[in-house]
Amino acid sequence: MDGTTALSGTGVSPGIGYGPVHLLVAEVPEPPVGARHDGDAEAERARVHAALEQVAADLEARGEKAGGEAQAVLSAQAMMARDPALAESVNTAIGAGTAGARAVYDAFGGYRDALAAAGGYLAERAADLDDVRDRAVAVLTGQPMPGVPEGGGEPFVLVARDLAPADTALLSREVVAAFVTEEGGPTSHTAILARALGVPAVVACAGATGIKAGTPVLVDGATGIVRTDPPAGEVDGARKADEARQAVLAAATGPGMTADGRPVPLLANIGGPADLPAALAAGAEGVGLYRTEFLFLDRAQAPGEEEQYAAYREVLDAFPGGRVIVRTLDAGADKPLAFLPPPGEEPNPALGERGLRMFRAHPQVMETQLRALARAADGNTARLAVMAPMVATREEAEWFAQACRTAGLPEAGIMIEVPSAALRAADLAPAVDFFSIGTNDLAQYAFAADRQLGSLGALQDPWQPALLDLIHTAATAAVSAGKGCGVCGEAAADPLLACVLVGLGVTSLSMGAASLPAVRAALTRHTADQCGLAAQAAREAGSADEARAAARTQLPGLASLAM
Amino acid sequence: MDGTTALSGTGVSPGIGYGPVHLLVAEVPEPPVGARHDGDAEAERARVHAALEQVAADLEARGEKAGGEAQAVLSAQAMMARDPALAESVNTAIGAGTAGARAVYDAFGGYRDALAAAGGYLAERAADLDDVRDRAVAVLTGQPMPGVPEGGGEPFVLVARDLAPADTALLSREVVAAFVTEEGGPTSHTAILARALGVPAVVACAGATGIKAGTPVLVDGATGIVRTDPPAGEVDGARKADEARQAVLAAATGPGMTADGRPVPLLANIGGPADLPAALAAGAEGVGLYRTEFLFLDRAQAPGEEEQYAAYREVLDAFPGGRVIVRTLDAGADKPLAFLPPPGEEPNPALGERGLRMFRAHPQVMETQLRALARAADGNTARLAVMAPMVATREEAEWFAQACRTAGLPEAGIMIEVPSAALRAADLAPAVDFFSIGTNDLAQYAFAADRQLGSLGALQDPWQPALLDLIHTAATAAVSAGKGCGVCGEAAADPLLACVLVGLGVTSLSMGAASLPAVRAALTRHTADQCGLAAQAAREAGSADEARAAARTQLPGLASLAM
Repeated sequence: MDGTTALSGTGVSPGIGYGPVHLLVAEVPEPPVGARHDGDAEAERARVHAALEQVAADLEARGEKAGGEAQAVLSAQAMMARDPALAESVNTAIGAGTAGARAVYDAFGGYRDALAAAGGYLAERAADLDDVRDRAVAVLTGQPMPGVPEGGGEPFVLVARDLAPADTALLSREVVAAFVTEEGGPTSHTAILARALGVPAVVACAGATGIKAGTPVLVDGATGIVRTDPPAGEVDGARKADEARQAVLAAATGPGMTADGRPVPLLANIGGPADLPAALAAGAEGVGLYRTEFLFLDRAQAPGEEEQYAAYREVLDAFPGGRVIVRTLDAGADKPLAFLPPPGEEPNPALGERGLRMFRAHPQVMETQLRALARAADGNTARLAVMAPMVATREEAEWFAQACRTAGLPEAGIMIEVPSAALRAADLAPAVDFFSIGTNDLAQYAFAADRQLGSLGALQDPWQPALLDLIHTAATAAVSAGKGCGVCGEAAADPLLACVLVGLGVTSLSMGAASLPAVRAALTRHTADQCGLAAQAAREAGSADEARAAARTQLPGLASLAM
Repeated sequence: MDGTTALSGTGVSPGIGYGPVHLLVAEVPEPPVGARHDGDAEAERARVHAALEQVAADLEARGEKAGGEAQAVLSAQAMMARDPALAESVNTAIGAGTAGARAVYDAFGGYRDALAAAGGYLAERAADLDDVRDRAVAVLTGQPMPGVPEGGGEPFVLVARDLAPADTALLSREVVAAFVTEEGGPTSHTAILARALGVPAVVACAGATGIKAGTPVLVDGATGIVRTDPPAGEVDGARKADEARQAVLAAATGPGMTADGRPVPLLANIGGPADLPAALAAGAEGVGLYRTEFLFLDRAQAPGEEEQYAAYREVLDAFPGGRVIVRTLDAGADKPLAFLPPPGEEPNPALGERGLRMFRAHPQVMETQLRALARAADGNTARLAVMAPMVATREEAEWFAQACRTAGLPEAGIMIEVPSAALRAADLAPAVDFFSIGTNDLAQYAFAADRQLGSLGALQDPWQPALLDLIHTAATAAVSAGKGCGVCGEAAADPLLACVLVGLGVTSLSMGAASLPAVRAALTRHTADQCGLAAQAAREAGSADEARAAARTQLPGLASLAM
């Protein structure tokens, strides 16, 4: 692409990012067997040795920056790239007409086999050798380097078809200026990670992986526009507008409420006590979703009542007078626990014995958790509420509520994340004290579209009218029964959609701490009636895009805040 | 269990079955290492040699009955059981105090390793040796024999926790008198297989696997009652009542309609031309679901247009003037095709790129199928309709309908099996000519409960009020738009539920041929208004059981027909 061009996707994490593109590729393909150069062996040799030297120098530089053990590994890799015997082997192959990239591939292959055959420590170095080979082949064939670059230089814009957790484990705001993916939706891993890091992100951006590596791009995580080679003035303008937006957000403080004063408590989703400082800094009024899995995963035995008590107490202590909603263990075949093996092979773990279903077979695990929670709430001003995941029927809701009463817990609720629970919410509401809608799983089941598949991102769009219908059904049933109905899925983190959720009848919103300021500001700009009209317009739409557009028309002035 | 006792489950395939219980077990457990006998080595040796001889004689007898190549294999297995060197090895171990079952296990283990090490033909016999060992261990430890017994004797009642396709591949009515499982629901594999074979079946029957092998039991596949050691009079009485029921069914002929004359076309679900004779014999008015997967599975290349044309034409020719609804290929990661590999690893294939979604990436496969269908319909009096699986949104419905129009097909419809399609049926109805509700998948997604997991059978119950709500929403939307709405899931095969479906607004019913007579008879006994009241009562219920009971009260007189 030449000149400045604009691509358009779905903005899922607001903010402005600017930097050179780094294309994330799964792997460097093997150069074709029998590939030949154009006849000038000397030129080809020079090209290859320059490429190997470039790789070696890059590895060395990264080693110096990293220091310590990493430096030793990277220096050893640089030595591999500069190995004279390997160069000799490449030279010979090029002399026989083999293309440079293939010659490198073959020469490293011979080394690799020798290393692997040596066994022990040397065999373990085979992967390092493959990495050097892939880097050299990438340089020679003009392909992007494999993996995510090290930090330290200018922050880059990471562009990929889709991002997996493994790709992004070590990223931070200092390293990545923005994310842009061709697939995925607002609930994709990319979107969730970006909001958690506070990095701007655009998903579902067709053509993004066609941008040449190194091209400077300007990413607007609110509008979803990705502009290549932008003029300097545009970058500055976008940054100024973003600063203004930050100032607006910082100005909105206090409890969540609409312009006409309807309270909408703004709560934080947390995965453990470690997430408390960010939640408190963002002004969370309490916790809307405390995921308790962290206590249970990667352990041989279930945590004891004392250990659980301490973890729950710490969170309750952080919100004196506030509300803390704890979700009981949501494990199952996709998050297997060593001490609670799944009952058998599950061909579709997301449709298996997850959440509450697992408690039916192992009630003692639930009972211990409920006892620890009841003790933690005792003598504490925070208002504890406990809810169960994956409830599908009235009978399940009644069973859980009874168990909470037996444990002496003051408030028992359920997640609304299975379509049947939303559809029959009027039947379920009398059995419990509150609902909390998990929009991510609810969409996954309502559209039969796996949350983990980026290619089905469009069906995971929380603006889909069918999902809005289910939310409306659940919230209306709760309100009619005099109960509360929160949303704790990613949908609550979108300022425009947050207003629509309030219009659908939702009574509280819970989200990652980073999203709280923009949602708080959005609510202050519109009355409850305006939110209701926007919700109605969105439900009358025939697609997610039409619903979003209809809500925008009803709720003007949110573009400066976010999506 | 002593004396006559009654267990109760869910009847899913009507009829009376009587015979001795055969317990199907997954495998014979390994006898504990170090197990010792009670000190009388001679008695233990005698017990073991009697067991080995029993196994050998049984294998030989089965071989004589089977003849041919099977006889050769079974005779060889009998020789293994009678091998003197093996007996010697067992005797020695028993002399050292080892329990007989463990001695057998170890002796066969030594043989097994020797065979496996020999390689080639001998190594392939290791599995035969394991089978002999398991049989001998089962006899010695008083456990049921592994696997399903051969036919030839008195038909048996097969009792299991749940049945998998592999367990039942070779069964027939001559061999099995009835199925009884502890798990599963009306849409489980057991239920579908039983109805297809015309064998009575009861699922979700708690305690069934506690019945001792060989106990005679009387199974009522209509009421779900399983009675052990019944008096002879009771068996005769039940059989007479069943014959009377068969006579009632045989008396109901002609097109499906309610007592007041509302036509409800009764159609057959077929998997290929091979299913036509049964459909015609049962008086099917046409085909409501022609699954076309059989043309595509287990092939290196997609079938050509000519081959497809012939397969479609054969079915259309069988129903002159009738309606034939063909479902386009429903493949995906759970039914992978060699020529259409899934786009990547799918952690939950049921929530992956199935059905229509696959066509978005491979439109040429769909186009060839639609062309072959259009040609098959040309100059044929049967009325062809074509429908797409796994449609979730209006946009997908429009895309498919447009493709059908382009191919020159007269009628384009969609399956309603994704909850979002049912919820937004009013949006989708204008885009297509008809709906066909797939209740099995619709329940799977609405309750987030895998169809393949017997342990979640209760959530797959088609009487769940949330499922009835979705069916009502879809049928009402279709009727309002002047379109038809059929049901082609297993729900249509239950006579009581079939009446409720009509009351919910469904306009045609499609099912396995074996279920057509009972459903036809049920419809003739009630008016459309009665069906409507029953549907309303069922939707007002709070659980599947309550819904079933409420419908029974509104529609009396169906107990003699079936479930």
